[in-house]
Amino acid sequence: MRHFLSPTSLSPERTREILTMADQLKLNRFGDALKNKSVGMVFFNPSLRTRTSMDIATYELGGHPLTLNIGQGTWSLEHREGIVMDGEYAEHIKDAARVLSRYVDILAVRAFPERKSWGIDRQDPIIEGFAKYATVPVINLEGAMHHPCQGLADMMTIRERIGEPKAQPIAITWAWHPKALPMAVPNSILLEAAKAGMDIRLAHPKGWELDDEIMQTAQNLATAQGGGVRVVHSMKDAVEGAKVVYAKSWGSIQHYRSPDDETRLKMSLRNEWRVTEEQMARTDAGIFMHCLPVRRGVIVDDAVIDSPQSAVYDEAENRLHVQKAILASIVS
Amino acid sequence: MRHFLSPTSLSPERTREILTMADQLKLNRFGDALKNKSVGMVFFNPSLRTRTSMDIATYELGGHPLTLNIGQGTWSLEHREGIVMDGEYAEHIKDAARVLSRYVDILAVRAFPERKSWGIDRQDPIIEGFAKYATVPVINLEGAMHHPCQGLADMMTIRERIGEPKAQPIAITWAWHPKALPMAVPNSILLEAAKAGMDIRLAHPKGWELDDEIMQTAQNLATAQGGGVRVVHSMKDAVEGAKVVYAKSWGSIQHYRSPDDETRLKMSLRNEWRVTEEQMARTDAGIFMHCLPVRRGVIVDDAVIDSPQSAVYDEAENRLHVQKAILASIVS
Amino acid sequence: MRHFLSPTSLSPERTREILTMADQLKLNRFGDALKNKSVGMVFFNPSLRTRTSMDIATYELGGHPLTLNIGQGTWSLEHREGIVMDGEYAEHIKDAARVLSRYVDILAVRAFPERKSWGIDRQDPIIEGFAKYATVPVINLEGAMHHPCQGLADMMTIRERIGEPKAQPIAITWAWHPKALPMAVPNSILLEAAKAGMDIRLAHPKGWELDDEIMQTAQNLATAQGGGVRVVHSMKDAVEGAKVVYAKSWGSIQHYRSPDDETRLKMSLRNEWRVTEEQMARTDAGIFMHCLPVRRGVIVDDAVIDSPQSAVYDEAENRLHVQKAILASIVS
Repeated sequence: MRHFLSPTSLSPERTREILTMADQLKLNRFGDALKNKSVGMVFFNPSLRTRTSMDIATYELGGHPLTLNIGQGTWSLEHREGIVMDGEYAEHIKDAARVLSRYVDILAVRAFPERKSWGIDRQDPIIEGFAKYATVPVINLEGAMHHPCQGLADMMTIRERIGEPKAQPIAITWAWHPKALPMAVPNSILLEAAKAGMDIRLAHPKGWELDDEIMQTAQNLATAQGGGVRVVHSMKDAVEGAKVVYAKSWGSIQHYRSPDDETRLKMSLRNEWRVTEEQMARTDAGIFMHCLPVRRGVIVDDAVIDSPQSAVYDEAENRLHVQKAILASIVS
Repeated sequence: MRHFLSPTSLSPERTREILTMADQLKLNRFGDALKNKSVGMVFFNPSLRTRTSMDIATYELGGHPLTLNIGQGTWSLEHREGIVMDGEYAEHIKDAARVLSRYVDILAVRAFPERKSWGIDRQDPIIEGFAKYATVPVINLEGAMHHPCQGLADMMTIRERIGEPKAQPIAITWAWHPKALPMAVPNSILLEAAKAGMDIRLAHPKGWELDDEIMQTAQNLATAQGGGVRVVHSMKDAVEGAKVVYAKSWGSIQHYRSPDDETRLKMSLRNEWRVTEEQMARTDAGIFMHCLPVRRGVIVDDAVIDSPQSAVYDEAENRLHVQKAILASIVS
Repeated sequence: MRHFLSPTSLSPERTREILTMADQLKLNRFGDALKNKSVGMVFFNPSLRTRTSMDIATYELGGHPLTLNIGQGTWSLEHREGIVMDGEYAEHIKDAARVLSRYVDILAVRAFPERKSWGIDRQDPIIEGFAKYATVPVINLEGAMHHPCQGLADMMTIRERIGEPKAQPIAITWAWHPKALPMAVPNSILLEAAKAGMDIRLAHPKGWELDDEIMQTAQNLATAQGGGVRVVHSMKDAVEGAKVVYAKSWGSIQHYRSPDDETRLKMSLRNEWRVTEEQMARTDAGIFMHCLPVRRGVIVDDAVIDSPQSAVYDEAENRLHVQKAILASIVS
């Protein structure tokens, strides 16, 4: 593994090895895999959980974390090749990535979609630009398409809570939310569940399909691992008999540039697409998962997220452990 | 002590023990009380002194400091229970506090009053929310009601400069300032001076009374420790024969939501409520104190703050030492 | 050396010693010169390279780096003496510098020009204020007049690439840029090249003269070291036979407060004042240098900056090594 950019950066076998490492690091938090090494975290967008867990992961492995906040809500690096830079961007990603590589041993980058064009966003030009030009390993801390550290933490949590996930039913379900949110989290849990050979029910209203290439990759991975992916259009159908309910809202690719249309269209979906005790009662003693932050009473009711079936704080904690496993592997 | 939220988190006896620890840490700056421990500092508002002194305190005790800047001038966490979160807040304090508790060993939080309602602000919902939900100790780095680290540093400084404070006269005096400032600092020095049994003269114009509950607690503490609290309405009366002049501006609770009225009302108070050499001449060789930042020529004249009687830089330095004593105590 | 504020803080002899130290630190990155020491970096303006290289330099010497971001694009400390502070500034630099000196062992400050008055900006009141009031050493991380760490990194790079610089021809050339940029970088490379006794050709259009005092100092230093400074008004004349081409844009002092006039005046200069392969062909196998960030296609063509003659990434890396040499020297 040169970079860790997506769930597919790790084979199903390598994923299990990383998760075993993470289990060990959970038992024994301190190490020296990053002794004398610096990890530069480049945030184009705000972060609480990711920034904290990466910082502490680096520290507890004996390394030095460094956070760089690039800007608030704007892309401030040019990523296009061969351009005359007389516009708004003062630096090319080529130069930023090469320079930072002279100072630190690992770069970790968060760059949310710009939301001007799905065709451009889905290429994750900032994160891919760092991966192309950096001379040190690059870890994706969430782009438009992937949030691979979250996906690993989710899978670690599933293994802790339900044991071997192969062939187990998981409902990955859209939920209503006032805003149009990114797709990186549903994409990543979908791909991780597929690599683990789970019986995946992906639920969303018509018009909220995930990216075609992600769906194709998930189908192929799941089939190869003895699992499968079935798309349904009702949360109720998805959660029936599930061992895991993974809730997350995301925006529609069809309405990517017309959020007002999307808001109007999804008005009627609000009640049906919220995780309630009634929905959880349909599961096979299923656990509730969400990457956080979560809007209580909107995505999920308090009675569910505050119940013993809720795994959300373990998911968050496991970010720390899987990121250590990734950090230790990527420098070794 | 589970959390350190207010001067009353420490009994008078425990306060003296903490100050003795701080004296020792001033002589011998380095220790390992925080070895392998992380301190997460959560700032809802900007900070220079507090952020720097907490960071260095953590480092010099062998720990790892981590600063999280939540937002600029706005509350970005929901603190109300059982609410449907379809408004502006994307995360509940319950979830943020529980998640951060999985990553760090101590949380330290600054959250200034929102200034919409004194009734709500005086409950310090953000800091109290962290204290309620966090599973690690919480240190208050200044809320609407308390700035307990400042109060301890002030008392350490008083002991250094005038010796045993019991029964010694201290003037805690309002000063004119163009803005309506928070009350956390006057509340905290008032409560610390009361715990130390000082002879407290609290001076402010009519209409600038401190919170009733704070006043009652201060009266009770002072009386129990052989001191007292007397309210006067002139700086001149307060400083007469004082060993300590503690100046600070604060806003009026009466005009909490009408700052324009307050500005108009206090126009005439400007000259009378500034610490001048003339005022200091009335003291018993008193020292001058202020928590900083201070507006020179507004709160205090250069001739006073730059004189040998000024203790302001010692006060600032002592933040470092008392915070180390608190950090070391709270994890032990 | 009490503070490191400008290239002239170091004599030509001491400069060579620092550069020799930097060479050694490049071979052997880790040390303990800053053991138990904290370096407070105070940024009044954003930074990527400087912040990262100072942080890593401090860490790799065993010290503790701390970044303080003061404000975005505004001066938030009063620097005038004896003023009544009833305006926008809430703290005096005198107090901020004295307080921070109680917490950290070294202060490093970046404060760009305010661009209201060249007469005031050229005095660098913020950085000079810190130097005046701090009780610990102060390092200039770029003001209006100097960027001395950059100048040292540049000279280290020149020595690596062309050997002993004495009497070697260097072209320091203005380049077109859409904005009016600061003069700190050209001033610093000019003074460093002068201290090294180089044969300096300083090229800029008429009206873009550097500060008179800087020019006089550079002339004196160059002459004393067996070199010289010649001003020309064409990039072509400057680069002829040069061993080094150092490109940088800067704003005109004459039009300091009328940027629109400057934009209009320089419109016609765009093509002539860009570093192209054609310009580089006139040199004596010269290297290309720029401090970064750089606008590709505006200051320099891709074919030049991406060629083996380009030293820009080494320049950036060398910031790390020279800053370590400065940090280690200033505390010893």
